[in-house]
Amino acid sequence: MSSRLIFNIRQLMGTRAVTSPLRGADLAGLPFIDNSWVHIEGDHIAAYGPMRALPPDLALLADGPEGIDATGCFVLPTWCDSHTHLVFAGSREPEFVDKLKGLSYAEINARGGGILNSARRLADTPEDRLFVTAWQRLEELSRLGTGAIEIKSGYGLTVEGELKMLRVIKKLKERSPLSIKATFLGAHTYPEAYRQDHPGYIDLIIREMLPVIAAEGLADYIDVFCEEGFFSPAETETIVRAGLQVGLKPKIHANQLHLSGGVETGVRLGALSVDHLETMDEGTIALLAASPTIGTLLPTAAFFLRMPFQPARALIDAGCAIALASDLNPGSSPSGNMNLVVAMACIGMRMLPEEAINAATLNGAYAMSLGESLGSITVGKMANLIVTKPIPSLAYLPYAFGSNLIGRVMIKGEFVN
Amino acid sequence: MSSRLIFNIRQLMGTRAVTSPLRGADLAGLPFIDNSWVHIEGDHIAAYGPMRALPPDLALLADGPEGIDATGCFVLPTWCDSHTHLVFAGSREPEFVDKLKGLSYAEINARGGGILNSARRLADTPEDRLFVTAWQRLEELSRLGTGAIEIKSGYGLTVEGELKMLRVIKKLKERSPLSIKATFLGAHTYPEAYRQDHPGYIDLIIREMLPVIAAEGLADYIDVFCEEGFFSPAETETIVRAGLQVGLKPKIHANQLHLSGGVETGVRLGALSVDHLETMDEGTIALLAASPTIGTLLPTAAFFLRMPFQPARALIDAGCAIALASDLNPGSSPSGNMNLVVAMACIGMRMLPEEAINAATLNGAYAMSLGESLGSITVGKMANLIVTKPIPSLAYLPYAFGSNLIGRVMIKGEFVN
Repeated sequence: MSSRLIFNIRQLMGTRAVTSPLRGADLAGLPFIDNSWVHIEGDHIAAYGPMRALPPDLALLADGPEGIDATGCFVLPTWCDSHTHLVFAGSREPEFVDKLKGLSYAEINARGGGILNSARRLADTPEDRLFVTAWQRLEELSRLGTGAIEIKSGYGLTVEGELKMLRVIKKLKERSPLSIKATFLGAHTYPEAYRQDHPGYIDLIIREMLPVIAAEGLADYIDVFCEEGFFSPAETETIVRAGLQVGLKPKIHANQLHLSGGVETGVRLGALSVDHLETMDEGTIALLAASPTIGTLLPTAAFFLRMPFQPARALIDAGCAIALASDLNPGSSPSGNMNLVVAMACIGMRMLPEEAINAATLNGAYAMSLGESLGSITVGKMANLIVTKPIPSLAYLPYAFGSNLIGRVMIKGEFVN
Repeated sequence: MSSRLIFNIRQLMGTRAVTSPLRGADLAGLPFIDNSWVHIEGDHIAAYGPMRALPPDLALLADGPEGIDATGCFVLPTWCDSHTHLVFAGSREPEFVDKLKGLSYAEINARGGGILNSARRLADTPEDRLFVTAWQRLEELSRLGTGAIEIKSGYGLTVEGELKMLRVIKKLKERSPLSIKATFLGAHTYPEAYRQDHPGYIDLIIREMLPVIAAEGLADYIDVFCEEGFFSPAETETIVRAGLQVGLKPKIHANQLHLSGGVETGVRLGALSVDHLETMDEGTIALLAASPTIGTLLPTAAFFLRMPFQPARALIDAGCAIALASDLNPGSSPSGNMNLVVAMACIGMRMLPEEAINAATLNGAYAMSLGESLGSITVGKMANLIVTKPIPSLAYLPYAFGSNLIGRVMIKGEFVN
């Protein structure tokens, strides 16, 4: 078993053990140790502490190839990105340009754009090609500090297509060092063939897709895009209840464009998270705050769609547990760079650096049921660590938003760069 | 003299010769050649064309160490960043956090923040230390594709401090391969000692600073922060006229926070550019459009300050010549990453990718009087080239806003990475 020591760390951030997601004022607390070390055995954190209390046997490691001198650098847990659509068949920048030229969503849809564009291209792309491109994206993201990631289906919209996506995600799970969770999002939108037959498509999801997914163990969660013009709260509930019956906990797309009822539905059904939350009022905020459900904010999606950022301060002040995620997808957030997510959360949504880092690490882990094994510097947790480049302070990370300040990234005890 | 060939270029962008900045609808035109090559001799572009018309003597270069295979890659001119405050003594992320916590500008100033914070730290920092940190920033920016840059003084606010900054910029000019222009911004704000004595500080600028700057050839331009609470239009005019008398053309900080009169003053005095322009009305837009003055937009500054983005579409539609720049500075735009500037110009201000690239290359060059030698792929111009990583289209650059898509960067015929 390999044994490694990262030493002379300027600040080791997130040193703690907690048993539930951080909420409200607790989000601003990020315990740290100045001038410190962390010892990694195999794939997990074995010990950590201040340099003045480095045991002699570990001090020997510092001089060998197992020693990593982190003078001037901060060490923090890797990003836990709890909401992505990482598997897709191609980028959609022509639509981006059409939107810049002022085309409406209706016109873009009429030109074959939007989710249905991704669905058409996914249908035409073989599974192994989907795997290769998704793998390349995962590798880029891991070098940017992401160590755990949730990936949704939802560009299939047919039995065959949804299963193809979920099998790609399963293969990523098996082969990647990253911790991966799979979410079944058959209810992303209504496919063309079922535009006038909502019950028919819901039936297809429940009777054709879910049984195979359950039998093959292809998903951890079930998601529905609960939004005007997509899935109503009642439709959302029907689908989520069917998912719950085969063991899939819900994570819901909620309140992106309207007060869609998504938050209420998610909270009532015990969703692990309700995600997006661009459009919230006092009632939905209070409801979320009083529930164990995590609110997942996606600032780069708001930025890319020129929407107001999510009301992070109101959510935190009300006592919500919030997470930050990238929403990586080819339509509305063509970036999985969590460093930029953290920066935009601070700059755009006035989150404090500590709040944003907690939301993007520990709470992101909890939003993937990984809070027990990831998201903080805790003895026994996975050794998923970011070693920054030398920086003057933690706040410098979001402040210097245009610089890549990730030095090295360790996933399960091994450096990926 | 070295001879290099970049070949198999997917698209060679910006192949043209023009003699003035692009304005209005012309900004959307970015001529290119598919499947092409560019030949570099010494520090300049010697020839370019389609692969099918590659001369046999140049084809020989492709097989040797002088050949760079750019299969799948785009080649474009390096960024010309015409507005920065690159020389400064330290980052100011503690103020960033204070602002997140809701402190007002007045409170931050009372704590010693703002420009005066940078001025105090600059006074305490030796010239050679300023040079080293500025050099490191220049190197980072050159690897991100910046090949020419304007750098302002303005954190001195004393005779000694302003001259120290300008001497650092002069040394950068002498030693860096980047093309650098120096701007004297003694009128950045009123220093503490002159807060109640504006004529006294203006006198200091005109009688003590300008003569030395002129005698030592320390600046190319003069700049004034024309804004409510800073320098009035009349004060701006007094300072600019003194600068003009010693050969310094004006570039003016105008209309950032208010309709400050900065645009009118700049246009009337023949400014090379008026910069910022967050706050414009129909009259100032029409005035700028009818003038030869370039309007320089700084989207990352608007983003960092949570202000509305500059009205790029209204400016372009009115026929203005606009440039894009980073405004790199420790207070309001702690990023010099021009790729992110271009992305934010598209995402936030609805500029088309071609418009943003023209504004960040050719028009940026003109905003530094470098339009004759930089900013496009033109025979005889400097070989300042960006080779992107393999990307599917030009629009992918701003679309994939979180990815670093810069492959290699050539400055004056030599690769910097």
